[in-house]
Amino acid sequence: MKITGSGLYLPPRIQTSKEIAPLIGKSEEWIIKKSGVKERRISEIDVDEMGAIAGRKALGDGIEPDLIINASGVPKQTIPDTSTFYQKEMGLKGIPSFSIHCTCLSFITAFHTASSLIKSKAYKKVLIISSDRGTRGRNFNEPESASLLGDGAAAIVLEAALNSERSKLVYFKMKTWPEGAHLTEVRGGGTSKHPQDPDTLPSDNLFSMDGPGIYKIARKEVYRLMLNCLKDTGLRREEIDWVIPHQGSGKAVNAYITTGGFRQDRVINIVTKFGNCVAASVPMALAKSIGENKIKRGDKVLLIGTGAGLSAACALINY
Amino acid sequence: MKITGSGLYLPPRIQTSKEIAPLIGKSEEWIIKKSGVKERRISEIDVDEMGAIAGRKALGDGIEPDLIINASGVPKQTIPDTSTFYQKEMGLKGIPSFSIHCTCLSFITAFHTASSLIKSKAYKKVLIISSDRGTRGRNFNEPESASLLGDGAAAIVLEAALNSERSKLVYFKMKTWPEGAHLTEVRGGGTSKHPQDPDTLPSDNLFSMDGPGIYKIARKEVYRLMLNCLKDTGLRREEIDWVIPHQGSGKAVNAYITTGGFRQDRVINIVTKFGNCVAASVPMALAKSIGENKIKRGDKVLLIGTGAGLSAACALINY
Repeated sequence: MKITGSGLYLPPRIQTSKEIAPLIGKSEEWIIKKSGVKERRISEIDVDEMGAIAGRKALGDGIEPDLIINASGVPKQTIPDTSTFYQKEMGLKGIPSFSIHCTCLSFITAFHTASSLIKSKAYKKVLIISSDRGTRGRNFNEPESASLLGDGAAAIVLEAALNSERSKLVYFKMKTWPEGAHLTEVRGGGTSKHPQDPDTLPSDNLFSMDGPGIYKIARKEVYRLMLNCLKDTGLRREEIDWVIPHQGSGKAVNAYITTGGFRQDRVINIVTKFGNCVAASVPMALAKSIGENKIKRGDKVLLIGTGAGLSAACALINY
Repeated sequence: MKITGSGLYLPPRIQTSKEIAPLIGKSEEWIIKKSGVKERRISEIDVDEMGAIAGRKALGDGIEPDLIINASGVPKQTIPDTSTFYQKEMGLKGIPSFSIHCTCLSFITAFHTASSLIKSKAYKKVLIISSDRGTRGRNFNEPESASLLGDGAAAIVLEAALNSERSKLVYFKMKTWPEGAHLTEVRGGGTSKHPQDPDTLPSDNLFSMDGPGIYKIARKEVYRLMLNCLKDTGLRREEIDWVIPHQGSGKAVNAYITTGGFRQDRVINIVTKFGNCVAASVPMALAKSIGENKIKRGDKVLLIGTGAGLSAACALINY
């Protein structure tokens, strides 16, 4: 498979950590030290419009995709799934559409699934859109997670590579440990803490995260995942051109340098400027790096991270 | 691919249409005439526990799956996705898990996706679980949809078929028309009508359906989908052993006989006894028919229906 298009949507409104400080009762310094986020974007349009802008950019003047996958953390609404609203906003119709959801790993998982669908000849051209508006679910009584979240969207187009091309998905691996299910949550919005239930608390509908708890499991497991990826592909760290981690926090991104052993200039960091954009973080960093011509054809790119579940996944691609 | 296991969970509590009549201000006769539903089940356990019971039955004494897909209409909670909660309830860990969502077509889409993942050798044994508790979201001010919804769960195990076996996915097709996005909705639970917004109405968090509006598009499009399936596979109606429609309503199921031209004894109807169980309807009908030894090895089974989106899909399998 080959990435034949990519698109990014950055909401124009910037909210600095200085602005957010009084809302969460912490200092600007505390926020930057704790989350690594200096500023984040706040979207004034909803996830479907954000995603459609990124989707149109990714498609360019090309022909319509024959599949649209939404790969986001939080939907526009419970039913129908967000993919149909992207299609509506893009002025398309009749294209099969569905959502893949595993929170922050939705994009990496959708990427692998789309590659498989293309490989098995089920589809020819897949548009994957990740669009998240995490700032809608910030809990200002939980300073750490509230200071992390930002809004953004990105999209990529996947097609079969020609035999003469080297572009491909080299490796994919995912694991889920349900003992970490409660470390990252929005407990409301479903059958468990239904919005109509008198015992559903306002905080149940907001984002809740146990940063240190996640880090404790994630650091060890993601390190093991990364080592296995190198071992199974027979590659050395130096042969990976770019590492695109899920932009969970400044600390999570830096761990690929300090613990992971990758060179700092090879690890893409967009969390400082855009915060944790849930499922959109990985494709945003990917689309941004492609757009800036940082990532070039033939480069080896490692997409890696953790998501609520608790899950960890990585995908190594030849761009 | 081959279905190597199936499991069903039917909540023990029955709610008859006679019981529901006073809640929606209609007569028992009106409900049965309008929805075709005589009784439905009401679950007292949540979707994860329901799905895990079906999942355990589908796995039997077999080895663990290497992928778990949740294919349901409404999640347990917004984050993380329900698949991790199934895994937790089943006492498993480390198995990659994610959700596929396109409301009532989630199972058919997950089935196709899992087949592709197996075909491309990404996974060997996939457990797909659909579990829906639609009665949690009934709007008693909307008598038609409130009388339709029921609770239930089902699971199937998919593995690669041996070369000597005839089991396979013969055909799959899906289409989505976003002009029908507002015909079936739960508008709340996401970024659009966030539970915390003062302008989110209680009814936004409940199921809403424009039955006649859906039927108008669906009847024509599903008929065309069915004809194309026959044409593309070169099969006659008589060669399809079983038709498993999404159990949208009595009328929707009967349309495969009256309009579709299939023999009544070949079209599986569970809507009369269990109502519309959202994404769980199709796998419940499938698992029930396999469990009763109605569907036998080698039988051609057509899974077909519509879902919110508005989408239509069909999958023809050699069981």
